[in-house]
Amino acid sequence: MTNRMWGGRFAGTPSEIMEEINASIAFDQRFFAQDIAGSKAHCAMLAETGIISAEDAAEITGGLDRIQRDMEAGAFTFSRALEDIHMNIEARLAELIGPAAGRLHTARSRNDQVATDFRLYVRDTVDHLDEQLAGLQRALAKKAAAHADTIMPGFTHLQTAQPVTFGHHCLAYVEMAARDRGRFADARRRMNESPLGAAALAGTSFPIDRDMTARTLGFDAPMRNSLDAVSARDFVLETLATAAIAATHLSRFAEELVIWSSAQFRFVRLSDRFTTGSSIMPQKRNPDAAELVRAKAGRVIGALATLMVVMKGLPLAYSKDMQEDKEPAFDALDTLSLAIAAMTGMVEDMEPDREAMRAAAAHGFSTATDLADWLVRVLGLPFREAHHVTGSLVSRAEQAGIDLKDLPLAAMQEVEPRITDDVFSVLSVEASVASRESLGGTAPDNVRREAERWLKALKG
Amino acid sequence: MTNRMWGGRFAGTPSEIMEEINASIAFDQRFFAQDIAGSKAHCAMLAETGIISAEDAAEITGGLDRIQRDMEAGAFTFSRALEDIHMNIEARLAELIGPAAGRLHTARSRNDQVATDFRLYVRDTVDHLDEQLAGLQRALAKKAAAHADTIMPGFTHLQTAQPVTFGHHCLAYVEMAARDRGRFADARRRMNESPLGAAALAGTSFPIDRDMTARTLGFDAPMRNSLDAVSARDFVLETLATAAIAATHLSRFAEELVIWSSAQFRFVRLSDRFTTGSSIMPQKRNPDAAELVRAKAGRVIGALATLMVVMKGLPLAYSKDMQEDKEPAFDALDTLSLAIAAMTGMVEDMEPDREAMRAAAAHGFSTATDLADWLVRVLGLPFREAHHVTGSLVSRAEQAGIDLKDLPLAAMQEVEPRITDDVFSVLSVEASVASRESLGGTAPDNVRREAERWLKALKG
Amino acid sequence: MTNRMWGGRFAGTPSEIMEEINASIAFDQRFFAQDIAGSKAHCAMLAETGIISAEDAAEITGGLDRIQRDMEAGAFTFSRALEDIHMNIEARLAELIGPAAGRLHTARSRNDQVATDFRLYVRDTVDHLDEQLAGLQRALAKKAAAHADTIMPGFTHLQTAQPVTFGHHCLAYVEMAARDRGRFADARRRMNESPLGAAALAGTSFPIDRDMTARTLGFDAPMRNSLDAVSARDFVLETLATAAIAATHLSRFAEELVIWSSAQFRFVRLSDRFTTGSSIMPQKRNPDAAELVRAKAGRVIGALATLMVVMKGLPLAYSKDMQEDKEPAFDALDTLSLAIAAMTGMVEDMEPDREAMRAAAAHGFSTATDLADWLVRVLGLPFREAHHVTGSLVSRAEQAGIDLKDLPLAAMQEVEPRITDDVFSVLSVEASVASRESLGGTAPDNVRREAERWLKALKG
Amino acid sequence: MTNRMWGGRFAGTPSEIMEEINASIAFDQRFFAQDIAGSKAHCAMLAETGIISAEDAAEITGGLDRIQRDMEAGAFTFSRALEDIHMNIEARLAELIGPAAGRLHTARSRNDQVATDFRLYVRDTVDHLDEQLAGLQRALAKKAAAHADTIMPGFTHLQTAQPVTFGHHCLAYVEMAARDRGRFADARRRMNESPLGAAALAGTSFPIDRDMTARTLGFDAPMRNSLDAVSARDFVLETLATAAIAATHLSRFAEELVIWSSAQFRFVRLSDRFTTGSSIMPQKRNPDAAELVRAKAGRVIGALATLMVVMKGLPLAYSKDMQEDKEPAFDALDTLSLAIAAMTGMVEDMEPDREAMRAAAAHGFSTATDLADWLVRVLGLPFREAHHVTGSLVSRAEQAGIDLKDLPLAAMQEVEPRITDDVFSVLSVEASVASRESLGGTAPDNVRREAERWLKALKG
Repeated sequence: MTNRMWGGRFAGTPSEIMEEINASIAFDQRFFAQDIAGSKAHCAMLAETGIISAEDAAEITGGLDRIQRDMEAGAFTFSRALEDIHMNIEARLAELIGPAAGRLHTARSRNDQVATDFRLYVRDTVDHLDEQLAGLQRALAKKAAAHADTIMPGFTHLQTAQPVTFGHHCLAYVEMAARDRGRFADARRRMNESPLGAAALAGTSFPIDRDMTARTLGFDAPMRNSLDAVSARDFVLETLATAAIAATHLSRFAEELVIWSSAQFRFVRLSDRFTTGSSIMPQKRNPDAAELVRAKAGRVIGALATLMVVMKGLPLAYSKDMQEDKEPAFDALDTLSLAIAAMTGMVEDMEPDREAMRAAAAHGFSTATDLADWLVRVLGLPFREAHHVTGSLVSRAEQAGIDLKDLPLAAMQEVEPRITDDVFSVLSVEASVASRESLGGTAPDNVRREAERWLKALKG
Repeated sequence: MTNRMWGGRFAGTPSEIMEEINASIAFDQRFFAQDIAGSKAHCAMLAETGIISAEDAAEITGGLDRIQRDMEAGAFTFSRALEDIHMNIEARLAELIGPAAGRLHTARSRNDQVATDFRLYVRDTVDHLDEQLAGLQRALAKKAAAHADTIMPGFTHLQTAQPVTFGHHCLAYVEMAARDRGRFADARRRMNESPLGAAALAGTSFPIDRDMTARTLGFDAPMRNSLDAVSARDFVLETLATAAIAATHLSRFAEELVIWSSAQFRFVRLSDRFTTGSSIMPQKRNPDAAELVRAKAGRVIGALATLMVVMKGLPLAYSKDMQEDKEPAFDALDTLSLAIAAMTGMVEDMEPDREAMRAAAAHGFSTATDLADWLVRVLGLPFREAHHVTGSLVSRAEQAGIDLKDLPLAAMQEVEPRITDDVFSVLSVEASVASRESLGGTAPDNVRREAERWLKALKG
Repeated sequence: MTNRMWGGRFAGTPSEIMEEINASIAFDQRFFAQDIAGSKAHCAMLAETGIISAEDAAEITGGLDRIQRDMEAGAFTFSRALEDIHMNIEARLAELIGPAAGRLHTARSRNDQVATDFRLYVRDTVDHLDEQLAGLQRALAKKAAAHADTIMPGFTHLQTAQPVTFGHHCLAYVEMAARDRGRFADARRRMNESPLGAAALAGTSFPIDRDMTARTLGFDAPMRNSLDAVSARDFVLETLATAAIAATHLSRFAEELVIWSSAQFRFVRLSDRFTTGSSIMPQKRNPDAAELVRAKAGRVIGALATLMVVMKGLPLAYSKDMQEDKEPAFDALDTLSLAIAAMTGMVEDMEPDREAMRAAAAHGFSTATDLADWLVRVLGLPFREAHHVTGSLVSRAEQAGIDLKDLPLAAMQEVEPRITDDVFSVLSVEASVASRESLGGTAPDNVRREAERWLKALKG
Repeated sequence: MTNRMWGGRFAGTPSEIMEEINASIAFDQRFFAQDIAGSKAHCAMLAETGIISAEDAAEITGGLDRIQRDMEAGAFTFSRALEDIHMNIEARLAELIGPAAGRLHTARSRNDQVATDFRLYVRDTVDHLDEQLAGLQRALAKKAAAHADTIMPGFTHLQTAQPVTFGHHCLAYVEMAARDRGRFADARRRMNESPLGAAALAGTSFPIDRDMTARTLGFDAPMRNSLDAVSARDFVLETLATAAIAATHLSRFAEELVIWSSAQFRFVRLSDRFTTGSSIMPQKRNPDAAELVRAKAGRVIGALATLMVVMKGLPLAYSKDMQEDKEPAFDALDTLSLAIAAMTGMVEDMEPDREAMRAAAAHGFSTATDLADWLVRVLGLPFREAHHVTGSLVSRAEQAGIDLKDLPLAAMQEVEPRITDDVFSVLSVEASVASRESLGGTAPDNVRREAERWLKALKG
C-alpha cells in the first residue's frame, strides 16, 4: 500500500498489479451486513424448499451469525487474496462449520449475490438520506416560521428585484428538498426488486422460491428476467443522479451563504461551529463549511459521470467493469450525507441580519412593480403602459436621489395626472410583501401558513 | 451567422456580440405552441377573475390564435432583436390588436412564463418518448416471442458462460425500457406543477387564480413557492438524467449488435436499411446505425453534465445562466428520440442466425454448471465439491478435445464413481435452457409466457 | 426537419430515420474549405508522382475551384442523400468535369480525408482563438496599467483578506490566458501532422508522397502509423480540454463581475452594451453577458464529456461513432469564441468604482498582516507570536469600533510595549499595497511594470 | 469513522460534522515529503536573505529532517484536530525545537504553501507516469518487432476491411502513448513555476528571494502574479485531462483485448496472470484486467469532471472549495498508474493466435481494395470505375462461395476483359500487406523499421 499512499504511481510485480486492480475487498467489505443477510435469506429458502437439509441450514446460519458478530466487533481479518466480501465470508464459514458451508452457494452465484448486496446497501443508504433531508427541511421550515416577515431582497441576476421574506426564501429550499426526497423514494421503489435467484445469469434448475427470499429481504418482488437482474446498474445511476441533483440544490444555498456572509452583504451570520477564523484577524468568519458544501456538488456530479461512462456500451450480462460501480457510489453517497449534515447544522445556527436585509430590500426601487401594478389595478392602464409610466417615475426618483416612496405626489402627477395619494400605500417594502398574497407568493401570512404546514407534515 | 457557420470563432462589434450571446429566439422558438397555450390560459384566467375585461380577453385570444396559425404555417418572421419567443409573440400581438395586447402581461413575468413553457415542452416530449419506448418494447417482445427457444450463449466477460435464449436476452431490454419509462413517468408527475402566477419571483398582488391556469394547462397543481417556481430546473436535470440512463441502455444493446454483426460472431443480421455498404465490397454490412446509437449516449450524458455545471452554485431566483438550459435539453431529447427510433427499426428488422448462435452456445463447456447442479441435486454433493468434480471432468474433456456431453460415462466415473447415465440428460444446451425454470430464468416456457404478458400489456 | 424543429421527438420511416441519424452534411459542410484544400493538395501530389496525368489534375483543380467559389457564394445546394461533405463535393465534381473526377479518390479514403479535414479545421480555429485570447489579454493589461494603484480588497473565502490593486487582479487573468494560449499552442503543434495518405487504414500501394501533401497543407510532417492516423481523435479531446479550462477561467472572472455588479459590492460598472435593463426599473443593469459567459463554461465542459464518452473503449480503426465528434467540437469552440468576445468587450468597457473598492479594502482590519510583519521585521518576534499579538490588537480595535490605524499607540503598547510610532507607517491600505514589492506582489510599481511588459509583448 | 465505513451516511454532532468536512489531513498527508522540501527551501532562503538567523534556520532544518524520517518510518501520528499536513508538521516542529519553529512561517502562508506542495506532487507523479508510459511503449514496440509480419484483419465498424499486421496495430498505440507523454511533458513544463512567496495572495513586504526557492525546488521560475499563484488550479485540470485522454487510449486497447479474447475471435491469448478462471470451467480465461482497465477510464474522466465543476465560477483568490481538488486528483493519477501497469503486463504476456488472425484477415474479400488499386494502376481505370468493377467481381465470388483469389481469370474477364494473370499477385493477404509501403503503411518492412526506431528511442 505504501506506493499508493505516498505516490500516485504503481510499480509492482504482475501478481501485485493484478491483485491491486482485481481485488474489491478494500471497498466491498462495506457490504458485509447486506451480504450476510442475503446469505441467510438464501439459506432459509434452500431449507424450506428442501434443497438443503434443516441441519445444514442451521449450521450455516449459526456460522454466519458468528461472522457478523466478529465483523461488527472489528475482529474479522479480511484477506485481499480472497478478493471480495463474498469469498471472505464463504472461506471463513468453511473454517467455522466445515463442508456444510459448501452447500450455501447452491442455486446462486456471485453475480446475483453482489447485485443483491448492492441493492440492499443503496436502499438502506437512501433511507438514511431521506431522514437527513427531512431533518434539513425541518431546520429550514423552523427558520421560515421564525422569519415569515423578515424582509430581504429577492434577486434576479444578483440584482435587487422585489422584496421577499427570508422565510419565503427558506421555504423554496424546503420545496427542492421535497422533490429530492420524492426522487429518492421513486428510485428506492424501483430498485426494490430482488435479483437473488438469477444465479450466474440464466436462472437455475433448482426449485428455488424467489418470492420467499425477496420477501425476507424486504424486496417488493423478484426481478423478472435473470439476465437483467445481474447486469442492471440503472438503480445506481438513478440514485447517483438523484444525489447529484440534491447536491446541486445544496450548492445553490451554499453559494448564497458565502455571498451573504461577505462584508458587503452581511445578510447572515454563520455560527462559529461552521466557520473558521484567523489567528491574526479574530473577527473573521470564513464560511468554510458552506464553500465545501458548494464544492462537493462537483464530486457527486463526477461520480455520476464516472458510472455513466463505465456502463455505456457494456454488453450483457456481467462484465468486470461493473466492479467499478461501487467506489464512486460510496463516495457520492457519503459526500451527500456529509453535505446535508453540514448544511442542516449551518441552517440551524444561522442568524439573519434583519437590518442589513431590510435596507438592501428597500434599495434600488424594489417596489417599482408594486407601483406599476397599482397603475394597472387602480387606474386601469394596460400592463405595458403602466411599466412605461413607472419607468419614468423611477427615473425622476433616481435623478432626485430619493426613493420612490419619497417622490412627491405632484412630481408623480406630472407624469401621470390620475395618480392619487393612495399610491403610497403600496410603495413600502412591508406593503409590497404583504400584498403578494397569491398562492405561493411571499406574503408573511402565506409564509407562516406554509411553514406550519411543513412542520406538521415533517413531525412524523 | 456566417461567422458561426464557417468558422468556430467570433469577431463582431460589441452589439453583435451581445445579440449573439443574449438572444434566445434561435432556439426558444420551439416553445411557440407552449407559449401561446400558456398565454391563452393566463388570459382566460385574467378575464374570469375580472382582472381584464372579457372583450380584451377575446381580442387577445383571437390574436394569439392567428399568431399560432402563422407559426404553424411557417409564415411568421422571427426577430432576433426581440430576443426571445415571448417578446416576438407579444410584439406581434400588439401589431395585430393594439393596446389590449398590453394587458396580457398583467400579473405575470417572463420568469414564470419561460418556466411554464419549458415544463410544458418537456412534459410533451416525455410523453412522446414514452410512446417510443413502448414501441421499442413491443418490437423486442415480438422478437422474444418468435425466439423463445432460439439458443445463444449467455456471456460473462464476453466469454460463453451458460446457454440462454435469444428471446430471454431481448426481454432483458424490455425490462430496462420498462424502468426507463417508469423514470420518465415519475419525472413527468413531479414536473407537472404550474409555475404560472409566480410572476417575477414573489407572487403578485392581483387576485389571480393559479388553480385555474394550472388546470387549463393540464398541470396537477400550482407550485407552492414563487421563488422555487421561477428558479427550479431540477425537472430538466431529472429528465436529462433519465434520458441518459435510457441512452446508456440503448448503447449496451448497440454494442452487442456491433459485436454480433462481426464476421467472427455472425449472431445477427441487420437489415440493409440500418447498415451501409461499400461500393467495393458489396457483401459488407457496416452497422452504422448501431454505432451511432452507441455513440449518442455520450451526447446525452454530455448534455446532462452541461446542465449540472450550469445549475451548480446558482443563487436564487432567476439568473441569465438559466438560459443555457434549453439547447442541451433540446439536443439530448432529440438525440434520445432518434436513437430509440433507430434502435426500434433495427430490432424489428434484425434476424438472428440460429445456427451460429447455437454453435457458440454449445462451445466452451457451457453446460458445466448443469453438470455441477446435477451432482448436487442427484448425488447430494455440496456445491463447492460439485464444482471441483465438474472442473476435473471439463479438464478431461478439454484434453480429449471433445464436448462434455461426448465424454464417456466410464471416464466420468473415474472422477466420480456415482455418476450415472442420467447425467447426459442435462448436458445438451437444449436441456440446459429448458431446465432454468426458476422465476425469471431462461427456460423457453418462461420466455414465451413473459413475452406474451408484455405484448398484452403493451397492446393499449 | 420539422419534426426536429418543433418536437424533440422522432417518428419517421426507417429510411428517414437512417438518413437522419447517418447523414453528416448538416454539420460537416463547415469543412468545405478544408476538404477542398485537402483534395487539391492530394491531386497535385498524384500528378507530381505520376499517379494521375497533369491534364486530369488540372481539370480536377479547376472543378474544385469552381465548387469552392459556389460554396463561398452560398450558391451550392447540399444534398442529404449524399450524406457528407466529401460525397457532395465529389458528386458535383463528376457533374462538372466528368470521368476525371473519378481519379481524385485514388490512394485515399474517406477515413483519411475526414481526419485531414477535421485537423485543418481545428487548427484554423485554434489560431483564431489564440488571437482572441491575445485580445482579451490586451484589454486586461490596459485596465491593469490604468489601475495599477486602484486599491480593492483581495479576497479569500469572499472575505476581505488583504488589500490588493485592481490592476494586479486583472493581471492574474492575463497570466491564466497566457497558459491557455500555451495549451492551445501545444495542442496545435501536436495535432499538426498529416493523416492524409493513410487511406482506409493500412496505407496504400500507390507511390504517394505524403511529405508533399503534408507540406502543402501546412502540416509539420505526416503521421507515422496509418491505423493511428485514421482512428486518433485525441487532438480534438485535447483541444476541448484546453477550451474547457479556458472557459473555466472566463467563468471565474464572470462570477466576480456578477458579484461586483451587485448593489452590495458596487465594485464595477459594466457598460450598457453588455447589460440589460428593465422597462420598469431604468436604473437596473443586469449583468446578462457575464452570467452567460459563466454558464457557457458548462457547455464546453459538457462537450468535452461527450467526446470522452464517445471515444472511450472504441476499437480501431474507424467506427461510425466517431462521426459524433464534430458537433460537440463545433459547439464548444464556437461557444468559447463567443465567450471570449463577450468578456473582452466587458473588460474594455468596465469601469471600477475606486471609492467603493477602497472603502471595502480598508474594512475588516485588512492590514493586520502588515502589522504582524512589522512586529516580526522591526521587533524580531517569531511569526507565530507576532500573529498572536496582532490578534489581540485587532480584538481591541474591534471592541472599540475603530480601525487598526486609529488605535492609539498607548493601547497598542499595553499589548506589546515595544511597539513604536513607526507602526502607523504600515497600517494604511496604500502603505500595505506599496510594501508588497516581492516578485509577483501587488505593489503598484510591480503592477505597472508587469502591465507594460505584457502590453509590449502583446503588441505584435 | 464507523459511520463512513459501514454506512454512506453521516450523523454526528456539529463539531464532528465540521471536522469531517473541513479536515484534509486524511488525504493531504500524501504531501509530507513535498511540504517538508518546500519548508526547507523557504527556510534556507529566509536565512540567506537575513530574514531569520542562521541558527534558527539550522534548528528548523534539523527538526524538519527528523519529522521526515518519522513520517517515512510510519512513526508519525497525524492529528485530525490539526486539520492539514502543514499544521501537523508545524505543531510537531514547535514541540521539537520550540519558539524558533514560529519563524518558519515568516513571509509565507498556507495558501502559497499548499499550492507549492500540490505542484511538486503532481510534477513528481507526472514524471513517474511518463516512465510508465515509456515502459508500455517498450512492451508494445517489442511485440510489434516480433509480429511485424503477423497478419490480422484491419477493422472498420468491427468489420474486416483490409489486412494489416499485428505489429502495425501495436505501433498505433505506441504513437498514442507518445502523444500522451508529450501532453504530460507540456503540462509538466507549464506547471513547473513556483507559487512560493505569493504569501496569502498579495506577496509580502519581506525581502524574499523567490528565484532562490524556485531554483531549490526544481521550478523553472517563480510565478509572476501572486493572486494567480494561489488561485490557479489549471495545472491540475490539465494533468487530469491528459490523464483522461491517456486512460481513453488504454480503454480502446482494453476493449480490443476483451473482444479478441472471446471464443469467437480468439485473436489473442492473455496470460493467466491477468485473467481469472472458474473452478467449474478450468479452461476459462476471463479478461478481468482488461475489463477493469476499460472501466477505469470512466473513473479518470469522472475525476476531471469533478474538478471542472469545482473550479467553474470560483472567485479569486483562495476559496475552501479548492480543498476538493486533491482527492479526485490522487484517485485519477493512482488509477491511471495502475491501469498502465496492468496494460503493460498484459501486453508483455499476450500471445496472438497467428492462425486465427490470418484466417480472419483472409475472410470477407479483404483484398478487394488491392484488386481495385491494380485496376487503376495497371489498366488505368479511374478510381470510381475500378471500384465498380471490383464490386462486380466480389459479387461473383460471393455467389460462388469462393475467395477473390480463387475466382478464375475467365470469370474475371467476363466483367473486365483486360484483366490479366498478373492480378493474382495482389490478391493474397501477404501480398496486400507487403504492398502497403507508403509512409506509415502496414507493410512488414515499415513495421519492422518503425519498431526498431522506437526501441532505440526508448532505450534511454
